[in-house]
Amino acid sequence: MSLLQCTIDSITPPDGAIREQARNRQNELTKPKGSLGQLEELSVTLAGIRRTIRPELTRKAVITFAGDHHTVHEEGIASAPMDVTVQMMANFIAGGAGVNAIARSVGARVAVADMGVALPYPDLPGIYRKSAGKGAANITKGPAMTREHAVKALEGGMEVLFAEADKGLDIVGIGEMGIGNTTPASAIMSLLSDTPPEEITGPGAGITDELIRKKVGVIKRALEINRPDKTDGLDILSKIGGFEIGGMAGAMIAAASRDIPVLVDGFISTAAALLAISIAPACEPFLIPSHFSAETGYAHAMAFMKRKPLLDLGMRLGEGSGAAMAMALCDGACSIINNMSTFAEASVAVAEMRDTMSDSLEQGKG
Amino acid sequence: MSLLQCTIDSITPPDGAIREQARNRQNELTKPKGSLGQLEELSVTLAGIRRTIRPELTRKAVITFAGDHHTVHEEGIASAPMDVTVQMMANFIAGGAGVNAIARSVGARVAVADMGVALPYPDLPGIYRKSAGKGAANITKGPAMTREHAVKALEGGMEVLFAEADKGLDIVGIGEMGIGNTTPASAIMSLLSDTPPEEITGPGAGITDELIRKKVGVIKRALEINRPDKTDGLDILSKIGGFEIGGMAGAMIAAASRDIPVLVDGFISTAAALLAISIAPACEPFLIPSHFSAETGYAHAMAFMKRKPLLDLGMRLGEGSGAAMAMALCDGACSIINNMSTFAEASVAVAEMRDTMSDSLEQGKG
Repeated sequence: MSLLQCTIDSITPPDGAIREQARNRQNELTKPKGSLGQLEELSVTLAGIRRTIRPELTRKAVITFAGDHHTVHEEGIASAPMDVTVQMMANFIAGGAGVNAIARSVGARVAVADMGVALPYPDLPGIYRKSAGKGAANITKGPAMTREHAVKALEGGMEVLFAEADKGLDIVGIGEMGIGNTTPASAIMSLLSDTPPEEITGPGAGITDELIRKKVGVIKRALEINRPDKTDGLDILSKIGGFEIGGMAGAMIAAASRDIPVLVDGFISTAAALLAISIAPACEPFLIPSHFSAETGYAHAMAFMKRKPLLDLGMRLGEGSGAAMAMALCDGACSIINNMSTFAEASVAVAEMRDTMSDSLEQGKG
Repeated sequence: MSLLQCTIDSITPPDGAIREQARNRQNELTKPKGSLGQLEELSVTLAGIRRTIRPELTRKAVITFAGDHHTVHEEGIASAPMDVTVQMMANFIAGGAGVNAIARSVGARVAVADMGVALPYPDLPGIYRKSAGKGAANITKGPAMTREHAVKALEGGMEVLFAEADKGLDIVGIGEMGIGNTTPASAIMSLLSDTPPEEITGPGAGITDELIRKKVGVIKRALEINRPDKTDGLDILSKIGGFEIGGMAGAMIAAASRDIPVLVDGFISTAAALLAISIAPACEPFLIPSHFSAETGYAHAMAFMKRKPLLDLGMRLGEGSGAAMAMALCDGACSIINNMSTFAEASVAVAEMRDTMSDSLEQGKG
């Protein structure tokens, strides 16, 4: 069996009994029920995924997947030249990028993977070299890659995740770097969420209104020419995707197979998450939206997924920076369930407090 | 001169030149301008307050101010009995409360101050004993406290802050514990933001709709009977405030006088912030709203203050728990400005990247 199929098949849903125990514990802690808001549900999610009601997130990594896209350069809608992808990879390895700074503040390491960078680059120590092609092809003229290369991208992402998992990994953030990758990400989201490209498409890292209109045209042509089968994630990835998007989707599926919670970074990562869910529906409960990307289509994606991300700070850098920042909230959520006393433990004789507070709040006044 | 006046007079506005340098540095870092959203502005704020473009927040504390309110117990609108205040103080000291758990996850210490707890309690090691009275009096029948006691509460809060500052303090979170203190907080917000009590008043830690209607009546009577002078913060505090609210306001003013950024916790802390600003307008730029409290009136307060808090997680515990969680974002913001490379430092030859991205984004497409 292929690595792809084997990994998909080995996903076991989060532990429902542990989730129940975690929720019960949350309701016994010395606070009005529900008063820690999303952090309570987050702790339940993390407990279920890690299969323990005392989850510890000591080993953290953010993985940044890099790839290029010939579409935006050939069609004249790129926000920056292609060599920026390579230069930013060097910046990640040197530790000077946004994702490095935020990861450092939350105690996470940063790993970088070349999934399909177009230009040559000098030896960068520590980079995962998993290239499945020298940049995704122009999707207005045909598929981004072959189906074989799509599988290679997915499996490359899985191999990266497994290598990081073998170093010890309690939670992972998945992000990306690739000039022009909001274009395929918008195409994927448009297709999977049944939303017209006009509503999904935004400025990415920064293009003018005129170029955004041109970008919408590019996405429409890509969808018309390639006619991806929206029920087949692999078909979508190969026709309108990108190598780093495939790598991210593969890593998400692989993380789920190892019971590792995934913080999904921003807009492109969310497109990869939609693909991952399309390919391996069982991975969905392992994916946690980290921050509300400022990119136009993100709100549509959250509405479609019926999810609310943890942070809303107007971030739109990518790289995994928002996923890294959200790790602090996961730490907080775990600390709540690990370190708060229950009413019994605290000997706080306030059954009244819990009961009064809980009962009235349960009536919907929280 | 009194400690109060002396502290107010010693506030020096955040350093405008440093803010400018910090903003310039943000614009030189290897990312599209503005792409780290609120974290960028937060780093500028912290740099200006700390008077360095490389702010380090290694020494953190959350201070929880406790006090009681006879109003809610006498008027029958309390969510829990008064002894919960004392029991929760013991829980804070033992390290088992929500604020302790979250503070631990961000590397902050927790300090507790008795500003006006009503019931006796055993010796709790480490508690700041700054009581200015055994619970605020019933504000439907007269003032909460005398003007002298209001000064004592403010100065008590200042003393607590100064004691913590002397231990080393780069950032502080200000929170509270006090059964029934959403009632005076709602009254203060209603008065200072010119909003009818009906729109401000919510369930607090948890009461029924019927009791909320009763609570609105209590607040209206308190405002009618006491007629606080809305241009005089001290008058407001003494007539419709509370001891812990005074302590918090005093601590906020004191923090500003020592160039220490203040994370304002939730609803009651924000009422204290409004009071602090009323008493010492110069403290305003030192106050950073930490999280969007789920309590009804919080949205009104933010609209009135024209501010947007860092987090929106549906938290409504109080204690300083939201302020503690937001410290992680302050760490992230500082790490960005301290650890990211500039384009020049990174030798990333992407003047194009910066210029293209920045220019188009400045045109309002971010």
